[in-house]
Amino acid sequence: MRDVAIVGVSQTKFGELWDKSFRDLIVEAGLKSIQDANMSGEDIDSIYVGNMSAGLFLDQEHIAPLIADHAGLNPVPCARVEAACASGGLALRQGIMAVASGYYDNVIAAGVEKMTDIVDATPAIAAASDQEWEAQQGITFPALYAMMAKRHMYEYGTTSEQLAQMAVNGHENGSKNPLAQFQNKITTDQVLRSGKVADPLRLLDCSPVSDGAASIMLCPAEDAKKYTDTPIYIKASTQASDTIALHSRKSLTTIESTVTAAKKAYDIAKVTPKDIDAVEVHDCFTINGLLAIEDLGFFKKGEGGKALEDGETKIDGKIAVNPSGGLKARGHPLGATGIAQAAEIVWQLRGEAGKRQVDGASIGMTQNIGGTGGTAAIHIFSRDQ
Amino acid sequence: MRDVAIVGVSQTKFGELWDKSFRDLIVEAGLKSIQDANMSGEDIDSIYVGNMSAGLFLDQEHIAPLIADHAGLNPVPCARVEAACASGGLALRQGIMAVASGYYDNVIAAGVEKMTDIVDATPAIAAASDQEWEAQQGITFPALYAMMAKRHMYEYGTTSEQLAQMAVNGHENGSKNPLAQFQNKITTDQVLRSGKVADPLRLLDCSPVSDGAASIMLCPAEDAKKYTDTPIYIKASTQASDTIALHSRKSLTTIESTVTAAKKAYDIAKVTPKDIDAVEVHDCFTINGLLAIEDLGFFKKGEGGKALEDGETKIDGKIAVNPSGGLKARGHPLGATGIAQAAEIVWQLRGEAGKRQVDGASIGMTQNIGGTGGTAAIHIFSRDQ
Repeated sequence: MRDVAIVGVSQTKFGELWDKSFRDLIVEAGLKSIQDANMSGEDIDSIYVGNMSAGLFLDQEHIAPLIADHAGLNPVPCARVEAACASGGLALRQGIMAVASGYYDNVIAAGVEKMTDIVDATPAIAAASDQEWEAQQGITFPALYAMMAKRHMYEYGTTSEQLAQMAVNGHENGSKNPLAQFQNKITTDQVLRSGKVADPLRLLDCSPVSDGAASIMLCPAEDAKKYTDTPIYIKASTQASDTIALHSRKSLTTIESTVTAAKKAYDIAKVTPKDIDAVEVHDCFTINGLLAIEDLGFFKKGEGGKALEDGETKIDGKIAVNPSGGLKARGHPLGATGIAQAAEIVWQLRGEAGKRQVDGASIGMTQNIGGTGGTAAIHIFSRDQ
Repeated sequence: MRDVAIVGVSQTKFGELWDKSFRDLIVEAGLKSIQDANMSGEDIDSIYVGNMSAGLFLDQEHIAPLIADHAGLNPVPCARVEAACASGGLALRQGIMAVASGYYDNVIAAGVEKMTDIVDATPAIAAASDQEWEAQQGITFPALYAMMAKRHMYEYGTTSEQLAQMAVNGHENGSKNPLAQFQNKITTDQVLRSGKVADPLRLLDCSPVSDGAASIMLCPAEDAKKYTDTPIYIKASTQASDTIALHSRKSLTTIESTVTAAKKAYDIAKVTPKDIDAVEVHDCFTINGLLAIEDLGFFKKGEGGKALEDGETKIDGKIAVNPSGGLKARGHPLGATGIAQAAEIVWQLRGEAGKRQVDGASIGMTQNIGGTGGTAAIHIFSRDQ
């Protein structure tokens, strides 16, 4: 198995991008990542794209060759990978395997979602849950995560104030990220006074509907220095599945797929949670960010709320959580999120994260979740090979 | 790079399967392939599923963990791969790379589509073409392929009678395949008298709307004999892209992605078209079957019609084309097709194809197309390592 390195990254601005089409966004991200790697189109051997649902958002399937076409890259092979909001993380995994296997050398792993071209994104997003047992009964994603939040409050005494800190932390960091959808700071009070979406989750507990794309250039580790002085190395790429419907889970307060995939990732990378300097977690709702920092082993189960309250997740805290702003502030164009998370960690490990730089970051991690945890993809990255 | 072998295959019956759900179909196929490999669920390390559009057909994305869940295989990683009607071929490719890379040993590559749960499948199928430049202008898939057929007739004098032979050949073989959707023979006259869909294509030039699933068990070639006495080896797995919209193509009478991917596959496998004993081509419409046998190098460009007329594509002809019945007779549940093609070649190379057996077949090939050729996936298989 060949080791794999990241030699280029990019992200478009995330937001409600009325003036940019699906095609514009992914081509912009892809070409920027090629330039960031000091490559040109002729260097590209294969492309993977994470996308949850161009089908339901745009009536467009078969986006892979469409993207290769609009980037002027035919006949380069291009494949779409989908696992709801973990589509980006899985595209990264397939890109890594394509390089590791020797099938291809220079591989783009990208992600894109254009969510604002339809009136109501909710039914499309609900397609990430179990249609027959959840969505058709009227349960939306905020409602599913609200049940998890309620249970965490019941079992561990977690408070709305504590949950709110996940959003406050995200916006604090997002205010320093010029590519973030929201670059304003918010207060605990603002979160607690925002409108209820699904009790106990309020508007500012929820990540937004977003357009955007992100892209990563992969190559064999042995070639990386040809393209950049600061390659970042993949130390682990893992994935696990869980029941797609919540009602079949043993617990509502832990995401087993995260626990399983993280344990495997730590083993493969030969590191522990203490070695991680920066982590991008999947805070589609504040409760999911809280579950993540517990399930990844940064804090004991039930103690995530207190850790957030105590500021241990700030950029200069015990573990820098979502230095990019996370899904809450950077935005959450579903298929792009897993790639944008990895791009942020690469910027952090290169020391290129500007005002949100985690001092001396050398090992980073991403956790990308599909649905309510039916899919989890975990990556560990390092400055050192 | 590790060599990869197929040690188990399965296909559900294809057809209008009112009594079987999406979940039923994929779980049935997956478990049968595990049994065919003399494995059990605990042996499975990872799953890839090709599916074009559970989103548009069933309002269900995130099918990968749903499948793992319903097969009782959580927390095994599961990923969906999509490239329209080439989704199955691409799932097979990702499965092969997952094994080749060393990331996983025993990998399922499956495909599934449930197309008959909605009133009209046409808009969902049209999502495989370019929405903005084709589908929204009212062009359906029969119309796109009809333009290709018209042009082939204009350039090479190909006749409707010759095209019809592709369907007659498929039904002849399908009549010997107990898993085929249509097991009746048809005559040239029946094809030519069937209703016009898009001139010059008639109803019997078109593959049907189908439900179905197929599955393949992959493992490292060095382990294959542990599971079966008749492993089949992957000799090449290639893919190419082309413009998704027809109007940008240099030619309407050749599918460049097939030509590019096939050339690479022959090079990698170190074989020529003459070495192939049986081929499964993507005859979603008769014209696409004809283009395939030319583009794959079995017949010169423009001579495919005559070859069909002369019976050179029959099971005992120069090259056995679609011994399964092809998309026309076996049926075409979009995401399942690429896997079903590979399953047929495995049965042929094992000598297990019953009344449709190609005598002494030792090397086989599949060609799986997405859209009008925006994607092509080619595989070459051999009885010998």
